[in-house]
Amino acid sequence: MRPSAYERHRELLQSVARGLAAGERRRPFTEATGQDAAEAGMRSTRTAGKVFDSLLGKPFELGQPGEVGRVGTESSPYFGDLGIAYPRCDPSELVAAAARAAAGWRAAGPYQRAGLAVEILRRLNTRSHELALAVHHTTGQPLSAALRAAGPRAQDRALEAVAQAFTESERVPADLRWESAVRGGRPLAMQGGCALVPRGVSLLVGCPDFPLWNGYPGLFASLVTGNPVIVAPHPRSVLPLAITVRVARQVLAEAGHLPDVVTLAVAEPERRVHQRLATDPEVRIVDFTGSARFADWLEVHARQAVVFADRSGLNTMVVDSTEDYRGLVRGLALAMCLCNGTVRTTPQNILVPERGFGTDEGHKTLRDLGADLGEAVDRLLGHPTRVARVLGAITCDEVRGALAGASRHGPVLHASAPVPHPDHPHADVRSPLLVRLRASDERVYTREWPGPVSFLVGTESTSHSLALLRRAAARHGALHASVHSTDPLVLAAAETAALGAGAHLTVNLADLPADPSSALADPPGSAAHFVTGRFRVVRSRWPVPQAAARPAQAAEQPAARVPEPASVAVPDSGPAAELIDV
Amino acid sequence: MRPSAYERHRELLQSVARGLAAGERRRPFTEATGQDAAEAGMRSTRTAGKVFDSLLGKPFELGQPGEVGRVGTESSPYFGDLGIAYPRCDPSELVAAAARAAAGWRAAGPYQRAGLAVEILRRLNTRSHELALAVHHTTGQPLSAALRAAGPRAQDRALEAVAQAFTESERVPADLRWESAVRGGRPLAMQGGCALVPRGVSLLVGCPDFPLWNGYPGLFASLVTGNPVIVAPHPRSVLPLAITVRVARQVLAEAGHLPDVVTLAVAEPERRVHQRLATDPEVRIVDFTGSARFADWLEVHARQAVVFADRSGLNTMVVDSTEDYRGLVRGLALAMCLCNGTVRTTPQNILVPERGFGTDEGHKTLRDLGADLGEAVDRLLGHPTRVARVLGAITCDEVRGALAGASRHGPVLHASAPVPHPDHPHADVRSPLLVRLRASDERVYTREWPGPVSFLVGTESTSHSLALLRRAAARHGALHASVHSTDPLVLAAAETAALGAGAHLTVNLADLPADPSSALADPPGSAAHFVTGRFRVVRSRWPVPQAAARPAQAAEQPAARVPEPASVAVPDSGPAAELIDV
Repeated sequence: MRPSAYERHRELLQSVARGLAAGERRRPFTEATGQDAAEAGMRSTRTAGKVFDSLLGKPFELGQPGEVGRVGTESSPYFGDLGIAYPRCDPSELVAAAARAAAGWRAAGPYQRAGLAVEILRRLNTRSHELALAVHHTTGQPLSAALRAAGPRAQDRALEAVAQAFTESERVPADLRWESAVRGGRPLAMQGGCALVPRGVSLLVGCPDFPLWNGYPGLFASLVTGNPVIVAPHPRSVLPLAITVRVARQVLAEAGHLPDVVTLAVAEPERRVHQRLATDPEVRIVDFTGSARFADWLEVHARQAVVFADRSGLNTMVVDSTEDYRGLVRGLALAMCLCNGTVRTTPQNILVPERGFGTDEGHKTLRDLGADLGEAVDRLLGHPTRVARVLGAITCDEVRGALAGASRHGPVLHASAPVPHPDHPHADVRSPLLVRLRASDERVYTREWPGPVSFLVGTESTSHSLALLRRAAARHGALHASVHSTDPLVLAAAETAALGAGAHLTVNLADLPADPSSALADPPGSAAHFVTGRFRVVRSRWPVPQAAARPAQAAEQPAARVPEPASVAVPDSGPAAELIDV
Repeated sequence: MRPSAYERHRELLQSVARGLAAGERRRPFTEATGQDAAEAGMRSTRTAGKVFDSLLGKPFELGQPGEVGRVGTESSPYFGDLGIAYPRCDPSELVAAAARAAAGWRAAGPYQRAGLAVEILRRLNTRSHELALAVHHTTGQPLSAALRAAGPRAQDRALEAVAQAFTESERVPADLRWESAVRGGRPLAMQGGCALVPRGVSLLVGCPDFPLWNGYPGLFASLVTGNPVIVAPHPRSVLPLAITVRVARQVLAEAGHLPDVVTLAVAEPERRVHQRLATDPEVRIVDFTGSARFADWLEVHARQAVVFADRSGLNTMVVDSTEDYRGLVRGLALAMCLCNGTVRTTPQNILVPERGFGTDEGHKTLRDLGADLGEAVDRLLGHPTRVARVLGAITCDEVRGALAGASRHGPVLHASAPVPHPDHPHADVRSPLLVRLRASDERVYTREWPGPVSFLVGTESTSHSLALLRRAAARHGALHASVHSTDPLVLAAAETAALGAGAHLTVNLADLPADPSSALADPPGSAAHFVTGRFRVVRSRWPVPQAAARPAQAAEQPAARVPEPASVAVPDSGPAAELIDV
């Protein structure tokens, strides 16, 4: 007999789970990428390119139920229409299919589910370059960035979700014995068990910028806790998730499960398939990473579901002082450019005291910083090859609109201008925009501006900057904050402000690596609720031995009595401990 | 120096936490009640009676902010108006006070919070009899039942919530080191920490029947995870929670905390204080146990909060066959009577095949069961002392209305009649109502009927009974189901049906002990989400060594580079791994 998926992947799973428990991050896929990539079965870049090309302009087959037509919505900012025709399925048919598949998937239990999840990841790993190309051409990200966000690092992140869901499932006690209240003068021995009951159909609303990186944790946490998942990508970036769904369905079918445990829901935007699915009474979990606006919409309308909404939020940087001014400027310029401003390291709001700040190169004014940032951006983008590796191509009019709109709100310190891409002359590639604002322009800078838009905001003091940070976080929910200071008191105040506002904080790190899988990822063990919110625990219990198994003469035993706590004398009905005998 | 509360209670806390981890239930307060009650400082019944009497007809002082008047809403079904005048405080002042107290409470950290929570419980333990009298006279429950639901067992249940919250807090990794992406060819060493961020002000909406039993888990889980709690009792049963709040405030103040970490919100029902608080933007957690109607209202309207709603639901019993017919009848009769039908063991719907079922006393028809149940109830209530120990006194017109209304829907098998209480001739004490219905009367028996109302529902078969059970659970959410059968196949089908519907299941246990703390309590370890949903985890991170601490010449080091995954060759911009150097 072939070993089960769990048996095959047990060691890997256990090692990641042990790492989580110890607060350490294991990265088996990332680590295998160096020397062992070929050994691990990872396709070469060349082969991946051929596979990717072979997908273009063709129907993409998934064998899903309820197919009512075909739909293609994707366009590469580098070469135009992808021409891939995905099946468009009736959303209610997809929900019904997921509900049908749920019973068998639940019955498989956490061991088998976790094993199959790892198997899905292992196969996705062999297609890392193909997935990276799919992300590159649908999000506009540079290819190297796409590989980081769609390849082994994303698979490791998913593996952590698998291990966490598996660990939480194992914590549900399957078999219990305890003593109940006294019956007939003796404690009644009880026996019982708990069962993890998945919430129900899970919906993943895809993110247009990081479809896999942001999508995998919810997808795999739901799967391992027993919930079927409908994957509804953003219309601009379908292919990465479509490949993922196809791989998952293959693994499921090979293991004898209904493949509809995982399905893909795509439609033209005007069909509002996300909204329809998110409010379907059978959909009980919704995962979403993206704009605060849609997150708010989900929380108001998807009332029948648990909503895990990760708001992209307002990245805010507080500059108080630095001992590495050049490093700060260089890092900030890089962060403003990277991936077209779509990564979590892009600072939207840079709060700096109006009267300047101390550095290793002497006092710098707000004006100095603005000018130096502009120059650093130009220097960074001065070489065409670097442009291709740093900037993404713009994929939508929303970003173009934001760039045009933001420049009207204050003096432009660095204008967003077209930048020629060395390999794709027709791609719309633009340098980042930097606009100077006053602290009183709160209504401008507390909005979310997509794309490479940054504001340099002059404040009264660092305290004022921290107060603005706190207020923005309180009003707009979670955000990512960073602070630059050489003063331990300011760092402590920043930590208090950030924690008080529930914001994640980065300290003295301007040139944050662009890799979302490391510096900006959740540390292990921080997401129990993300997993435990996906299931309920129900109990069954019976007396030991079971009444049904008791000999018939048990009926002659002493009758049921109302239990009498040892120390109670009942004042208003007399101290008599009269027992009830019907 | 006095040892901290955590030091004093560490062993107790750790022993309960270890028990939870091992799936065993520890009950230190219950176990100490026998011999060591006096030693543990528990007041005698007589002293408690005097203390209780001394509270009546007087103002109840709490020293809370925003007091705008006095309010008393409680009446004992045994002797009438309690005459206790609680402070009525402006709800928004209470929220503001809780928000002010939050920072210090959060800063106290999980160790101190857990220690103080245990100290509160230890003091409540010494007042167990006083709390039991408060529950007895506000809920109408028999005194012995009130002691079970308000004394040591409730404290043990709370202690389990404390231990669970403490354990989950400890799982948040405080100190982390990891390697980030490559910078300048070398991995960047990162350091960071996670912090548990409480959600915010927590609201406990009190339950009129089991104010402490149902209230303590949420109250203590919120406190230990760092959230201040506003306790808003049901107007019919304020005193038990008011005493609890007063004790908590004393312990907090003695430890140097703002007592407003715990406050009491009472008002006349027409002021809708629960609704006002539940929709206050600052209130981020709501706990409620009770009617599905109010639970639904909360989930629709308290959108800014996490709602932990435990619906009282429809208790359903499926009778298929039994080897202990007399035990079944006797147990069922007792369950119908106990505490006025307000306990979770009261079966509202008893589903039995229309054509009867097999027993150790031969085939029994539905009619036999109805007649035998009626007789058993009469026999049980035939002795006045038993009446005082089994039945509660009715406290509200809602129950009277339900008894009158339900009897109109089908043939009455046992009428609800006044029963004289031996000690309180004016108390409104009534025997339970049993009405026969058809399976097609679903619209009647899928409603929630408060008080001692049971329906004997004739079905086509046990399969039909299980199908009805599953449908009711799917439509009305969680419910408690029980099944009686000698057939392993039926038991397996019942388990599948119950788990499939997310219902808790009890097998072959008609005479469930009335003690909610044992047979019907959640087994340990089943409630991770109940705790982890009360906080978020936020992160801070910085490079090692900190840039701020780096010597100034660090600025001369190699410039930031865009990380380059080892195995990537970038096909559309050439394989060159050109590094970025601004």
